[in-house]
Amino acid sequence: MNGKLGKAVCLLVLGLSANVPWGAVVAQEQAAAKFAIAIHGGAGGDPAQWSETYRQARRDGLQAALDKGVAMLSAGGQALDVVEQVVRLMEDNEVFNAGRGCVLNEQGTHELDASIMDGRDLSCGAVARVTATKNPISLARRVMTDTRHILLSGDGADQFSLASGLEQAPADYFRTPRQLANWQRWKQQQADDAAGLQRPRDAGLPELYYGTVGCVVLDSHGNLAAATSTGGLMGKRWGRVGDSPIIGAGNYADNGTCAVSGTGIGEEFIRHAVASDIAARIRYGRATLAEAAAASVAQLPEAGGGVICVDRSGNIRFEFNTPGMSRGFATSAGDTGIMLGKDD
Amino acid sequence: MNGKLGKAVCLLVLGLSANVPWGAVVAQEQAAAKFAIAIHGGAGGDPAQWSETYRQARRDGLQAALDKGVAMLSAGGQALDVVEQVVRLMEDNEVFNAGRGCVLNEQGTHELDASIMDGRDLSCGAVARVTATKNPISLARRVMTDTRHILLSGDGADQFSLASGLEQAPADYFRTPRQLANWQRWKQQQADDAAGLQRPRDAGLPELYYGTVGCVVLDSHGNLAAATSTGGLMGKRWGRVGDSPIIGAGNYADNGTCAVSGTGIGEEFIRHAVASDIAARIRYGRATLAEAAAASVAQLPEAGGGVICVDRSGNIRFEFNTPGMSRGFATSAGDTGIMLGKDD
Repeated sequence: MNGKLGKAVCLLVLGLSANVPWGAVVAQEQAAAKFAIAIHGGAGGDPAQWSETYRQARRDGLQAALDKGVAMLSAGGQALDVVEQVVRLMEDNEVFNAGRGCVLNEQGTHELDASIMDGRDLSCGAVARVTATKNPISLARRVMTDTRHILLSGDGADQFSLASGLEQAPADYFRTPRQLANWQRWKQQQADDAAGLQRPRDAGLPELYYGTVGCVVLDSHGNLAAATSTGGLMGKRWGRVGDSPIIGAGNYADNGTCAVSGTGIGEEFIRHAVASDIAARIRYGRATLAEAAAASVAQLPEAGGGVICVDRSGNIRFEFNTPGMSRGFATSAGDTGIMLGKDD
Repeated sequence: MNGKLGKAVCLLVLGLSANVPWGAVVAQEQAAAKFAIAIHGGAGGDPAQWSETYRQARRDGLQAALDKGVAMLSAGGQALDVVEQVVRLMEDNEVFNAGRGCVLNEQGTHELDASIMDGRDLSCGAVARVTATKNPISLARRVMTDTRHILLSGDGADQFSLASGLEQAPADYFRTPRQLANWQRWKQQQADDAAGLQRPRDAGLPELYYGTVGCVVLDSHGNLAAATSTGGLMGKRWGRVGDSPIIGAGNYADNGTCAVSGTGIGEEFIRHAVASDIAARIRYGRATLAEAAAASVAQLPEAGGGVICVDRSGNIRFEFNTPGMSRGFATSAGDTGIMLGKDD
């Protein structure tokens, strides 16, 4: 936590009820609400257990992505362009579970999911289980702009990527030594479980399960957009599609309400249609962004995940029921911060 | 239209506002609300242009599926079992665009989508782009019960189906001569368009674009369930996933609100999260089922599709903005009917 938001967040957090822990509200004054951006780098693991090197690498990655977004927004950039470019930076950074450095499925291979949505007209695009596109979020945007469809998956999506001329990358670009080692630990634990061994659980493993990166933006033109990209769950079954490419589950943007990006156990986000549920609570139930996000995340099982949200007034909300969620935010008023755990 | 509901529906339709056309409300008395079932066989095409043979084949298919559902419900069957078995019957019937008789993608091959949801606990399962499972709806149920995931797609889903021991079928079981001929007409029109030919549009083609089957049920135990299955859009791009396997878009069930199955341009159902939007309007906006369904379908573009819904009180609602929607319903009070167009 840094910058002048520190005090405001602490005061507001104190005002939240006990079942809405670890949230952060940034209430901008209307006149100053020129732009607002929030990002996340996943809600998995307990940051208190991470090495200082790893913590700093995540902070640096978040900061670089945030700086890029702020620079674009300060120059009058469009929300849709900002969320795409910010997520591309995080996909390129192997510290996050998206693009390079993604987790591996049960077979030890990678399948990437991503989606993007434009709050102006609900245009959206998504890809599931792509394997060779360097930046899946840009492929999702191509599906949105260059096809009559929203979601393309598997080999058909890979083929569309090639035909679209997007940059391709070989398998070992995505599968980093660190994630290969993580997968081998996961595989060992599966083998131990299958053999009925009562070895102590691998305490580091929970961090491996979640990941995902996302960005939500209100731009200076008053438009909202959201983008989410992920390698999914470590050890996921071959063919599994999570919430990240599902519009309304892991990603949603509507100028009339808010923009949302989620991270966690994708199945729970699908079951509760979390991203569109937050918008629906605002639209139909007249909830505030803070109320809507808290109530929607409260539906998830313990340690199920988290969301980042920005509404059309530029209010930013983080909500998660995991030990941490790597996240950052900035506004045109100069408020900014990077956090990993509950309050640091 | 037949049975004693005919008059009730007509009276209620007269009471609807002008922008809520062709709907039908069945308001059961609370005491008699033992069970209710609604089915659809797609909202594509104008039934007035169909041959009498084809109309009768669709009516017969709907009636057989409805009879199966009523028999199970009368015997105290569970909603989840009923929606699966009813949809299986429609998948087996080549007159509908699901399972056998599905439409073909741009390459002339088939990719099937399906999903199922249990309103008791929001358990759900779905498959996308499967090619060899005789009954995709039963594979969706296996994903729900036998994996920690909700959505499996493509070759991974096909492999899971084989491993699960579900009945497989060869390609020419799904690809019927009628749909192959339809695909050739579609292909010819694409070629004409590409060549800039100004030939008259193929008036029969619109019927080819939509399809899908679905079933929603309130059982005598007070539980809701929904199931949807489809071959998707004629000429869809290889790898395209529509709304049918997307929980919250083309299929949704929650005991607290309602069960919904949709049919139409899947992308519009995804963009507006139609199925969960109807539930959200009831849950947060205190809308009635009729209000919620009408308002949600009103978001779709003209001729975008339709929905079938049943709420926890056993009210049934059909809503569509296409020239027709093949549909049927029955209640424990003895009301029943089969319809294809606006009012016949």
